[in-house]
Amino acid sequence: MNRVDVLMEAMPYIQKFHGKTVVVKLGGHAMVDPDVLDTVIQDVVLLHYVGMKIVIVHGGGPEITNKMKAMGKEPKFVGGLRITDNETLEIAQMVLVGKINDGIVSLIAKFGAAGVGLSGNDGNLLIAKKMAMQKIMVNEIEEEVDLGHVGEIEEVNPEILERLLESGYIPVITPIAIDRKGLSLNVNADTAAGDIAIALNAYKFINMSDIDGVMNAQRTRIYHRLNYSEAMNLIKDGTIVGGMIPKLSACLKCLDNGVRHCHIINGNKDHNLLIELFTHDGIGTMIKKKS
Amino acid sequence: MNRVDVLMEAMPYIQKFHGKTVVVKLGGHAMVDPDVLDTVIQDVVLLHYVGMKIVIVHGGGPEITNKMKAMGKEPKFVGGLRITDNETLEIAQMVLVGKINDGIVSLIAKFGAAGVGLSGNDGNLLIAKKMAMQKIMVNEIEEEVDLGHVGEIEEVNPEILERLLESGYIPVITPIAIDRKGLSLNVNADTAAGDIAIALNAYKFINMSDIDGVMNAQRTRIYHRLNYSEAMNLIKDGTIVGGMIPKLSACLKCLDNGVRHCHIINGNKDHNLLIELFTHDGIGTMIKKKS
Amino acid sequence: MNRVDVLMEAMPYIQKFHGKTVVVKLGGHAMVDPDVLDTVIQDVVLLHYVGMKIVIVHGGGPEITNKMKAMGKEPKFVGGLRITDNETLEIAQMVLVGKINDGIVSLIAKFGAAGVGLSGNDGNLLIAKKMAMQKIMVNEIEEEVDLGHVGEIEEVNPEILERLLESGYIPVITPIAIDRKGLSLNVNADTAAGDIAIALNAYKFINMSDIDGVMNAQRTRIYHRLNYSEAMNLIKDGTIVGGMIPKLSACLKCLDNGVRHCHIINGNKDHNLLIELFTHDGIGTMIKKKS
Amino acid sequence: MNRVDVLMEAMPYIQKFHGKTVVVKLGGHAMVDPDVLDTVIQDVVLLHYVGMKIVIVHGGGPEITNKMKAMGKEPKFVGGLRITDNETLEIAQMVLVGKINDGIVSLIAKFGAAGVGLSGNDGNLLIAKKMAMQKIMVNEIEEEVDLGHVGEIEEVNPEILERLLESGYIPVITPIAIDRKGLSLNVNADTAAGDIAIALNAYKFINMSDIDGVMNAQRTRIYHRLNYSEAMNLIKDGTIVGGMIPKLSACLKCLDNGVRHCHIINGNKDHNLLIELFTHDGIGTMIKKKS
Amino acid sequence: MNRVDVLMEAMPYIQKFHGKTVVVKLGGHAMVDPDVLDTVIQDVVLLHYVGMKIVIVHGGGPEITNKMKAMGKEPKFVGGLRITDNETLEIAQMVLVGKINDGIVSLIAKFGAAGVGLSGNDGNLLIAKKMAMQKIMVNEIEEEVDLGHVGEIEEVNPEILERLLESGYIPVITPIAIDRKGLSLNVNADTAAGDIAIALNAYKFINMSDIDGVMNAQRTRIYHRLNYSEAMNLIKDGTIVGGMIPKLSACLKCLDNGVRHCHIINGNKDHNLLIELFTHDGIGTMIKKKS
Amino acid sequence: MNRVDVLMEAMPYIQKFHGKTVVVKLGGHAMVDPDVLDTVIQDVVLLHYVGMKIVIVHGGGPEITNKMKAMGKEPKFVGGLRITDNETLEIAQMVLVGKINDGIVSLIAKFGAAGVGLSGNDGNLLIAKKMAMQKIMVNEIEEEVDLGHVGEIEEVNPEILERLLESGYIPVITPIAIDRKGLSLNVNADTAAGDIAIALNAYKFINMSDIDGVMNAQRTRIYHRLNYSEAMNLIKDGTIVGGMIPKLSACLKCLDNGVRHCHIINGNKDHNLLIELFTHDGIGTMIKKKS
Repeated sequence: MNRVDVLMEAMPYIQKFHGKTVVVKLGGHAMVDPDVLDTVIQDVVLLHYVGMKIVIVHGGGPEITNKMKAMGKEPKFVGGLRITDNETLEIAQMVLVGKINDGIVSLIAKFGAAGVGLSGNDGNLLIAKKMAMQKIMVNEIEEEVDLGHVGEIEEVNPEILERLLESGYIPVITPIAIDRKGLSLNVNADTAAGDIAIALNAYKFINMSDIDGVMNAQRTRIYHRLNYSEAMNLIKDGTIVGGMIPKLSACLKCLDNGVRHCHIINGNKDHNLLIELFTHDGIGTMIKKKS
Repeated sequence: MNRVDVLMEAMPYIQKFHGKTVVVKLGGHAMVDPDVLDTVIQDVVLLHYVGMKIVIVHGGGPEITNKMKAMGKEPKFVGGLRITDNETLEIAQMVLVGKINDGIVSLIAKFGAAGVGLSGNDGNLLIAKKMAMQKIMVNEIEEEVDLGHVGEIEEVNPEILERLLESGYIPVITPIAIDRKGLSLNVNADTAAGDIAIALNAYKFINMSDIDGVMNAQRTRIYHRLNYSEAMNLIKDGTIVGGMIPKLSACLKCLDNGVRHCHIINGNKDHNLLIELFTHDGIGTMIKKKS
Repeated sequence: MNRVDVLMEAMPYIQKFHGKTVVVKLGGHAMVDPDVLDTVIQDVVLLHYVGMKIVIVHGGGPEITNKMKAMGKEPKFVGGLRITDNETLEIAQMVLVGKINDGIVSLIAKFGAAGVGLSGNDGNLLIAKKMAMQKIMVNEIEEEVDLGHVGEIEEVNPEILERLLESGYIPVITPIAIDRKGLSLNVNADTAAGDIAIALNAYKFINMSDIDGVMNAQRTRIYHRLNYSEAMNLIKDGTIVGGMIPKLSACLKCLDNGVRHCHIINGNKDHNLLIELFTHDGIGTMIKKKS
Repeated sequence: MNRVDVLMEAMPYIQKFHGKTVVVKLGGHAMVDPDVLDTVIQDVVLLHYVGMKIVIVHGGGPEITNKMKAMGKEPKFVGGLRITDNETLEIAQMVLVGKINDGIVSLIAKFGAAGVGLSGNDGNLLIAKKMAMQKIMVNEIEEEVDLGHVGEIEEVNPEILERLLESGYIPVITPIAIDRKGLSLNVNADTAAGDIAIALNAYKFINMSDIDGVMNAQRTRIYHRLNYSEAMNLIKDGTIVGGMIPKLSACLKCLDNGVRHCHIINGNKDHNLLIELFTHDGIGTMIKKKS
Repeated sequence: MNRVDVLMEAMPYIQKFHGKTVVVKLGGHAMVDPDVLDTVIQDVVLLHYVGMKIVIVHGGGPEITNKMKAMGKEPKFVGGLRITDNETLEIAQMVLVGKINDGIVSLIAKFGAAGVGLSGNDGNLLIAKKMAMQKIMVNEIEEEVDLGHVGEIEEVNPEILERLLESGYIPVITPIAIDRKGLSLNVNADTAAGDIAIALNAYKFINMSDIDGVMNAQRTRIYHRLNYSEAMNLIKDGTIVGGMIPKLSACLKCLDNGVRHCHIINGNKDHNLLIELFTHDGIGTMIKKKS
Repeated sequence: MNRVDVLMEAMPYIQKFHGKTVVVKLGGHAMVDPDVLDTVIQDVVLLHYVGMKIVIVHGGGPEITNKMKAMGKEPKFVGGLRITDNETLEIAQMVLVGKINDGIVSLIAKFGAAGVGLSGNDGNLLIAKKMAMQKIMVNEIEEEVDLGHVGEIEEVNPEILERLLESGYIPVITPIAIDRKGLSLNVNADTAAGDIAIALNAYKFINMSDIDGVMNAQRTRIYHRLNYSEAMNLIKDGTIVGGMIPKLSACLKCLDNGVRHCHIINGNKDHNLLIELFTHDGIGTMIKKKS
């Protein structure tokens, strides 16, 4: 019976991760494709049942854009950042909290565990301040732009997460924070997830998006294992560019603050999460302080 | 200093309610008028700080209707019940969870306490089954109508609420349940609130809407205090009609199942919640098992 | 309804003090006038019910003097200090423990909470050593006087207080300590209360006596708010004299050891305790480390 | 070394009593003779250290009488019951709480354990109601007498005792109860001790006074072991008379309510408490439900 | 990656068994063949890590016989029962406790979990009384035989098991009980395991030996699933004979006392334990109260 | 009654040792003579019942030698160290775990407490590594000898002991450790006991063997009390020789690592353990950091 062999092969990993806290950032297609999300949550529930303490942080950019358009509101971006006026904030909250977050919690129930959806105002989890004016170049002239209700995290209060994890729930977090006056602010999901991993003193931080991992300059192969200084060098020498930079930076910040392993994997491929955790080589990129 | 006299006068009520669980159903204008909601939540936070364990259950019908219209979707009602197709369910979830619930939690933070927003899928709180076909009269012919994603509650799992109350949080609940397969179902907020009060063995169940309380047939005066059989009689003899019947029925079910006091009050008037609880005569209607 | 406005106005203070430990020293007329004591204890019970952890330390000098005279024993003072022989100690214990302390606990019961009376030997709460011989001037000649069974506190064991506070009781403490052999020693109530506040790492230390607060040299106005160095200067420049010096010194010692706020208020005026805590300006003197 | 033999001989008793709750009523000479009390408390502390949970309830009649006389107040008794007017109550409280109770707690400290003195108002331990008018014969005419501040126990709230026992303290209780309004009432110490033993579901109730135990009609020998019906018969057939009747009745009430063993022993003789517990035959009288 | 499919397929079983207590009786070749034992313990540790609470009870008859022969002592059996004189008992204890039990605990450590070896005297786990004289036929004459130090279980004290399971250890139990005087008695391992399963209110009792399960009369096929009455009938109608009768009886006793499932499987085949638990049809025989 | 005097005399010691952890190493004749062991365990149970937390570590060399000879296996020693081949290890384990350890646990049950027998593999208590080759002189030539399965302790994991002590059990430990691969290694019992005392931060470490204590060079008198430097000097100046050196070294290591008192006493004399602990002068040798 080969199924038993597989279970035995997975055992050392199950032992190693037993009781460990793992923060999983879910982004990309998983947020818009129900089949992808279905598979990811199934994996998450399995991790829960073999003894890990899982916290999910999700994004949701594309879905917000879709809904805005459906409601006749044109999304505006300046330098890649969404300008978030009152109406955009309301739509973002409805989509992130009322649709995506709620949907993930329902999927967790469907697969037999119990999730609890949280926004940054629940239990004062994420406290942020409004982001400063952004300087951007418009027609070769530097202009200052107000991004609106966009914030950067100042404080994470992980007590609510600790209570829920102790009681056996899987917390599912929307990256909307509140400021000191209780007003909502959109925050970057990668950054929020990293900060939460640090506040929980997590063992692993896993960033799942649409890309396969950190790749070489020619985009011909994935670095499956990197240490801190190798990753640093890939940023410095220009191998890594674009959207991978903030993802990798969030990982390095985590490693600086006690998180043991960071992973960047592609969430769109079936069971990549399990393959990354339960096989020797993994499938995406794992970064550790020291190799 | 007369403020001290007032504090002293409130003391016996504070003592009496200390450590007691109170479920508050919020409905009506409070759901659409930010100023009304502001005052109500301020009162709730005060109750929390003088030692009560508060659980909020909110409605949101009018706001759903508004948003549907804004998105070009015509709401349909049959016999007073909203027909909830896929699109309507999605909008309802976004409005209830992503806007109203989230807004209440932010207000709680603004007034200095910590709320946690929950939907029926969080911690498997509310399990429902799809409501049976409804028989209605259309042009004097009885027809059967499928209400769509509308459910009736089969099971309340209050553990998540107990954990949160123990840890000092104020749970805020949206009346959307899940069925055994994890699919969402709209449920009646009054009924959900009553069932939650029963599951928590609450001391009080308070229903706040736009009406002042149970009134006599001439609508000239409020019954401030009713016992179980008096309330029963007001239903039987036709004094009470319309939307008050389900509200009062939910109260009677609560009293049948161990809840000590039920209140029906108008949430639109400033601090009615405090006046009802902290004055001898109250301002709305209180129903007890025995007078 | 203006009572609600008052409650709302009190809310920020209730929030701020929620769960905080407050040590209240009761002295002066409250110890001999039942009506004054009645009002003070009513206030204390209200503070308990809105969430503070209250510890009472009481004095009782005048009542001891009365009882001694009633029993035909002449009180003797040398340099303002009571000489405490065996008989005096026995009378002091009976009056302080058997009458004043017991009376306060009964009043707490009357107003609906539960107190527990303690002397310094209960749970080895206050350990003291006999005070050294005092040098005083008699007819211009320095003499040494033995004050008898009078001690200075060497050690506070707050465990018994912590257990009682956790279980929801209000501890009421008589300032009689024991030495290492189990013998009783009278100790100064102001000092004992301050030392207990420090041992409990209290948030506030409130000294209630017959004086309105720290006053200016002309005794024309009260300093409602002082910081540490201002209070220090008032001692140095001679503005403060007499019995206020030890009271203020106990406050400064508290501030030096982590207590956040010290208050000196007049306990004889109705509800001064509530007014001091629940109004912006207060009514007596509050001293903080930094203004 | 014969000391070791003694320890080994005591071992089965130590094992049997380990973790058991024992209520000890202290009365008689122990209340007025410091040397007797010293020995008794030494024994009590030893029992504490070999693992029993000890609760002391003390009396104090003779000392109250002494103090009243010293203060020029003539004690009045009607039919053996002390008439307790306001002044008498005050003196009784001062003597019982401020002197005897406090003294016992100090002795416990002296012998190396930690006691906590309690009156019936501490933690609402003993709730009583005023005793009804007593009918007595005066010159062959029946008269009704008001005993004043004398009560009979209606309710025992043992929570404060349970908290203190759990935390390793020895509670020491004065038999003064409070009524529902917080007023003090003198209660019979034997009865109070028995009621406390019942409320704590104690293993043993030990009544220590100046008599050696239950004796035969000729007062020539002690019954060392009695069962319930034998004790009952000794009352019925007139063997037992006078002050022994209430003591034995308190024991029988205890046995009726789950206390396992009751003992009546003479506290004036050195270490009778240990001899009764640690030797096969004991020295006083032990009463069990069944022999 | 097919390994992930296997993990996903195992998930429903993992969920179902999560936190459940499972008592595994180990007998047969596993006790003498290190390779077999190795595989079994590997499986047990995997069950532990996916969330089950495992208790092992082991036998060891053949190994005792081997050791006795090695020490020049001839084993004696009467009617299939080992006669256990002093010397035999000593050898049995040394082999069972000092070799087999200890070896199992070491294997658990080798595979990454922590076991704790227990005999029936540890924590007074198994209390037994000497077995009565056995009637056997010798040359057609009935004789009574004293089996020596052989007992039947009177009492199981599962507290020590509960403490160890709570703390994450795997208890490993040798079937040697003690009598009320502390003397050792050999007890039947199947019976002991069943009684322990009942005392722990276990979810499953799994009996692993050298036989494949309950078979039909022709020994041509295994009954994979039986209910209580079917199993009963197989005994009554003579289908089951010999050593299977006591094994099946222990199962039926378990089902009568609240254990949910009993399994009889062959421990000699690789990973039969996992196959039985993690596949739909299993590999041995499962007996439930009702099918 | 002189028994009471003895109890009173023991009281200060009972108080002092209450709740303290004491590790007792049992060796010498106690391991082979049932009567001696009986008395020692009786004493241990008494210590348990008067409030100490006792951990027993036992040896068993002579018994292993006896059993080896009985099984026709000749014990081999090189330089005083037992050469432990596979067969010797198996016999040692059977004797130590299956006979001596098990016997001690049964005796504890006999005297009314509850023990739990442990080997170094239980709860991964003792982790060791194989001892390096030993250099010995054979015919004036240095040779290297492999002692076989003999280890030195690298790590003590006291969690299992802490759990058992908290739950009121007396742990009884066999000095067989496991290496990182789960293989058994014989370790020196004196060293193991000392290391366990250090890991538990014990108050006392008591080494019971066949010798009366540390003696002067002439062997004419015992040093009843030694401080650290005195003991050191006795080693340096050659007063102490032979087997006492490792015993005393284990004591000094304990004192260096926080154990407060070490005792070396003769376990063969009746109740020496109690006499050493409960009398002023003791009977063996006590070593403290400072006298």
